[in-house]
Amino acid sequence: MDAGIYNSVLVTGSNRGIGLELVRQLAESPIPPSQIFAGCRDPDGPRGKALKDLAQKHLNLITVVPLDTTDPASIKEASRVVGSKLGDGGLSLLINNAALNIPGNLQEAGMKEMVDVYITNVVGPMLVSKEFLPYMQRSSALPGSWAAKSGSKAAIINVSSLLSSIEMCRVTFSEACMYPYRTSKAALNMLTCCMAEELKTDGILVTALHPGWVKTEMGGPQAVLTPIESVSGMLRVISSLTSKDSGTLLNWEGNGIPW
Amino acid sequence: MDAGIYNSVLVTGSNRGIGLELVRQLAESPIPPSQIFAGCRDPDGPRGKALKDLAQKHLNLITVVPLDTTDPASIKEASRVVGSKLGDGGLSLLINNAALNIPGNLQEAGMKEMVDVYITNVVGPMLVSKEFLPYMQRSSALPGSWAAKSGSKAAIINVSSLLSSIEMCRVTFSEACMYPYRTSKAALNMLTCCMAEELKTDGILVTALHPGWVKTEMGGPQAVLTPIESVSGMLRVISSLTSKDSGTLLNWEGNGIPW
Ligand SMILES: NC(=O)c1ccc[n+]([C@@H]2O[C@H](COP(=O)([O-])OP(=O)(O)OC[C@H]3O[C@@H](n4cnc5c(N)ncnc54)[C@H](OP(=O)(O)O)[C@@H]3O)[C@@H](O)[C@H]2O)c1
Ligand SMILES: NC(=O)c1ccc[n+]([C@@H]2O[C@H](COP(=O)([O-])OP(=O)(O)OC[C@H]3O[C@@H](n4cnc5c(N)ncnc54)[C@H](OP(=O)(O)O)[C@@H]3O)[C@@H](O)[C@H]2O)c1
Repeated sequence: MDAGIYNSVLVTGSNRGIGLELVRQLAESPIPPSQIFAGCRDPDGPRGKALKDLAQKHLNLITVVPLDTTDPASIKEASRVVGSKLGDGGLSLLINNAALNIPGNLQEAGMKEMVDVYITNVVGPMLVSKEFLPYMQRSSALPGSWAAKSGSKAAIINVSSLLSSIEMCRVTFSEACMYPYRTSKAALNMLTCCMAEELKTDGILVTALHPGWVKTEMGGPQAVLTPIESVSGMLRVISSLTSKDSGTLLNWEGNGIPW
Repeated sequence: MDAGIYNSVLVTGSNRGIGLELVRQLAESPIPPSQIFAGCRDPDGPRGKALKDLAQKHLNLITVVPLDTTDPASIKEASRVVGSKLGDGGLSLLINNAALNIPGNLQEAGMKEMVDVYITNVVGPMLVSKEFLPYMQRSSALPGSWAAKSGSKAAIINVSSLLSSIEMCRVTFSEACMYPYRTSKAALNMLTCCMAEELKTDGILVTALHPGWVKTEMGGPQAVLTPIESVSGMLRVISSLTSKDSGTLLNWEGNGIPW
């Protein structure tokens, strides 16, 4: 994976799981981005330790940014911090990775579960994307940074799921009911397509990515992929995106998943 | 449309627009259902007048039921009222019609718009379906009521939209950005598929229906269909549903729409 095509990157929910591994692989790539912003809602708590240790190893590369993706004030403050570090440069890659799963079948899922999961998995990515959009537009206007072959110089990746696929529901439902999560990720796919359309003229790609079933707190120990395997695939897919992939849902191997 | 195949029907948001016309056509059909429950969040306010006038004309057929589909207490009370009227009979048809649209492009849509629309368009139908499910299971267990040819005796219809289609977003986006509405209706489609899977063994069909672009407060005066045209199509489609239509999105003419 040639990470050098990104000028600067922001990853949300990067203190553990897939988000932490994204930051690690980006930082340790042979040609790393010039700056990595690692969003984390509680960097100073115990859950922030692994990320802070990683940032310590890459002092001039990784900036840990306090960012609760469901809190508009926190998003605004994170944007101010990132903006001051970016200077005239733009943000070339935003990975909306933070998410929440509250498992539940029809009887278990209520108002609170549905709304909490929707706010984290859909409204959060929308608010973060809006707030950081000016930096992404700046990046996409720069000459010759991101993926020159595609003509796009900035991309937003919304981390979705196979369980977002309405078409595949017949096959996947019995193994994982998860009403709040599934409905939210289907909505995230729609958000992805709307943003892909709206940001086309800015040359900003917007793509939904399924990381596979990954051994994290969310994926559980029975999952089939390690974070290392999933993330190396995801970064390979991201680095080869072209405009025809904007507004689609791909898996970590680059294969399309039907809506 | 042979409405006689429904034993009893509940329509939410039936005081105006498509919901009101659904109740009218069901009541005035040559073979009407035995009971029509017309849900309305404020039957005694000015917006409830047209429905109350209609109910007055069909005294033993239409029961106006106070029902705010976003208020769990109101849903419970409505279920008690309907249950007391149903006696041993079941509910054979539930039409989740009530919905909200707050137009908005990326810049205009914020947390509040996203959450309010999601609660009305997704959580409401889920909570109402859960609460009335025992009556529907009772109906589906009765011998020989609803659509004998399909083997199903009860159905839940979620009124969705063409704008719910992620696949069609490229074509429909520029005319109607509507982030909160689109994301909510895509999520409603997922809810439809999940419920179709979960309720299969009960013999309850769950189908999403696009009414067309209809002249109502939501559709606006430029819309192409009258409520009369849309609803007569919808009722024709509903009356001919079979198990293969469960977990699909159809338009008012019975044609499938891709997710
Ligand atoms: N693992 C899988 O098998 C799998 C499969 C399909 C899709 N995915 C998707 O992959 C992405 C990463 O999942 P994962 O497996 O790494 O999950 P995870 O281990 O549960 O990690 C979730 C991350 O999101 C963060 N987060 C949650 N809410 C947040 C908020 N409001 N503000 C900031 N951060 C927040 C968490 O931070 P805290 O530590 O502060 O809670 C944590 O860093 C998610 O989008 C998930 O839906 C995962
Ligand atoms: N019209 C179109 O072109 C079109 C196109 C595609 C899909 N649809 C769908 O068709 C359905 C009906 O739309 P319409 O055009 O008839 O819309 P409408 O004229 O705006 O009527 C909406 C109805 O929903 C009710 N409602 C909203 N929130 C409610 C709540 N919390 N509890 C109870 N009732 C509530 C409203 O009641 P109040 O009077 O109390 O507000 C009203 O009766 C909706 O699902 C809509 O998304 C419409």
